[in-house]
Amino acid sequence: MSGSVGIVSAQRATFEEPLSFSCGKVLPRYELVYETYGTLNADKSNAILICHALSGHHHVAGRYADDEKNTGWWDNMIGPGKPVDTNRFFVIGLNNLGGCHGSTGPASIDPATGKQYGSNFPMVTVEDWVHAQARLADRLGIKQFAAIIGGSLGGMQAMQWSITYPERVRNVLAIATAPHLTTENIAFNDVARNAILTDPDFHGGDFYQFGVVPTRGLRLARMLGHITYLSDDAMAGKFGRGLRSGEYKYGYDIEFEVESYLRYQGDKFAAYFDANTYLLMTKALDYFDPARHTEHNLARAFAPVQANYLVVSFSSDWRFSPDRSREIVKALLHNKRDVSYAEITSQHGHDSFLMQDEQYFAVMRNYLERVAEETR
Amino acid sequence: MSGSVGIVSAQRATFEEPLSFSCGKVLPRYELVYETYGTLNADKSNAILICHALSGHHHVAGRYADDEKNTGWWDNMIGPGKPVDTNRFFVIGLNNLGGCHGSTGPASIDPATGKQYGSNFPMVTVEDWVHAQARLADRLGIKQFAAIIGGSLGGMQAMQWSITYPERVRNVLAIATAPHLTTENIAFNDVARNAILTDPDFHGGDFYQFGVVPTRGLRLARMLGHITYLSDDAMAGKFGRGLRSGEYKYGYDIEFEVESYLRYQGDKFAAYFDANTYLLMTKALDYFDPARHTEHNLARAFAPVQANYLVVSFSSDWRFSPDRSREIVKALLHNKRDVSYAEITSQHGHDSFLMQDEQYFAVMRNYLERVAEETR
Repeated sequence: MSGSVGIVSAQRATFEEPLSFSCGKVLPRYELVYETYGTLNADKSNAILICHALSGHHHVAGRYADDEKNTGWWDNMIGPGKPVDTNRFFVIGLNNLGGCHGSTGPASIDPATGKQYGSNFPMVTVEDWVHAQARLADRLGIKQFAAIIGGSLGGMQAMQWSITYPERVRNVLAIATAPHLTTENIAFNDVARNAILTDPDFHGGDFYQFGVVPTRGLRLARMLGHITYLSDDAMAGKFGRGLRSGEYKYGYDIEFEVESYLRYQGDKFAAYFDANTYLLMTKALDYFDPARHTEHNLARAFAPVQANYLVVSFSSDWRFSPDRSREIVKALLHNKRDVSYAEITSQHGHDSFLMQDEQYFAVMRNYLERVAEETR
Repeated sequence: MSGSVGIVSAQRATFEEPLSFSCGKVLPRYELVYETYGTLNADKSNAILICHALSGHHHVAGRYADDEKNTGWWDNMIGPGKPVDTNRFFVIGLNNLGGCHGSTGPASIDPATGKQYGSNFPMVTVEDWVHAQARLADRLGIKQFAAIIGGSLGGMQAMQWSITYPERVRNVLAIATAPHLTTENIAFNDVARNAILTDPDFHGGDFYQFGVVPTRGLRLARMLGHITYLSDDAMAGKFGRGLRSGEYKYGYDIEFEVESYLRYQGDKFAAYFDANTYLLMTKALDYFDPARHTEHNLARAFAPVQANYLVVSFSSDWRFSPDRSREIVKALLHNKRDVSYAEITSQHGHDSFLMQDEQYFAVMRNYLERVAEETR
């Protein structure tokens, strides 16, 4: 029996203690928006933290009473009887700092100026997020997580937890992620950022004050991103060379079905996502590189890790390929950590980690059942 | 002994007979700029046509007297004693219609209005180019080419020649090309086009009249293109995660070496290339699909072909992968054509076709030596 966590509502935690960022800036005060599902047990040992990726947020599962269609972004994975079983675990989703879904971010008002932070918002890193998440855990009385789970950029946070706070996480589930971005990944991110940075409506990040939004740049960034989240085969299977009107029109309006899809996705995203948040998220991806502090030796970077790991990759994911997951596995094994690794055959590219797949879900379920047994 | 064709100069051919395009438009009059190397033999049987790709042009080999550093884009391949041996062949390079290197294109003056064509320039297809090239061949008295050679979009033109004018080409050398673009290819092109189309300085294609150039869009298009012309491994080998200043700067200026490279390439390209030409070239790529007229059966599309073929692909080319070349080979073999196929192991991605590589050059040389023997 598996179902929905049902109606949920977001909560807000305010932190008055200043937070220092890797970049040197300080936020004197900030807020984190989060949601929880399931019940925290008496010894507070059954908590699971879900870390989100580039465009994710705190609404991970369930629906809102006033917006029934707004289902959490990982609702297929989390709920009663689902792989992340809310009958057994207390699950937390949050919106990271710098986000645009309620937590303090570039569009928030800077109390020092009375205006939106904009270009003044600190550059955030995965390490910074982990520190902020740890304070939220403190607030909830959680000394140690049963598991921290994340895909893509979320997986980087989960890994970072096990390095920064080794004693605070028993299991890391690192999905479709990498120990650092490849050169090509960084290159794609730079094109996406430049689309935003050179949009005349960006105004150096302070567009809020001009009453405009760099829609053109955000749209391009999302269109490009979408291509890299899918596999070549998945796009071919879904759209092929299908023409919207059945024939060539010899113009620059939409001709191929894939153009229609991409432009629609770009427009939809540009209508709600904050451009500064997009920039910050891609930079956090670029910067993540725990082995940077250990002379590019990942095994040494993982030396502090105490957690057990489940690493999952997807065969058609060319942005975070299985090879990258194997680097993680190898470095953990070098430290004699307990590591399970699953390479799932999937056609959906990087997006596979968000899709329902029998083998993938079975791997997640089996691993978390063991975690639940140990947690009892 | 292999050398340079030395100092060359461009020539110009004016065509007063109207040319009809696939899109339905007509150019009443147009010019083609071209260069030739070597000597046309008495029976005019030793001519080779070089078809250019997206950003190529007529300056294929040699140097200009007044611009010694401006070496032709395929100078490593073409010259006395080189694989395309100008001691044996009469080699022609031209700038295609719609280009921005001297042939009639969007920046040319439309005699009907006295203004640049801009958005009024006809959409061009590979078939249209082949027709225009055939007229240039007529002008030069060439009834049949010993070979037509092209890489990428150039390979599409070479293939189209063997379908449209089967009796006019004895050999096709189709390099790093495909029988049509994949869905992913079209998607990347659409992002690049949208970068240009949504640049406020594009003015619907008539920016010439506004004294501006859609530099931002062109720059993004080129940055994106560059990523897809290289392989992941080539980028990693060349730039890795190298930082320009050795440390994170936590800003949006250049940090990683790969960003420096991409932005430089983008800026350089945007400073000279015409935005409308870029759009036209990517559309010509999207439209090319000879099997569209034969119910998506490529073998039937190739049924008229009489030419012998050399098909070359490169292992790390993910934009025009070896699989796509094999589709060509298979369809030609189905028609019992004489086909040689070489898959070159190379790290340079799609750009490999422009690089000097021992195995690749040996394959080209050997094939063309046979052509030269037959031509004698």
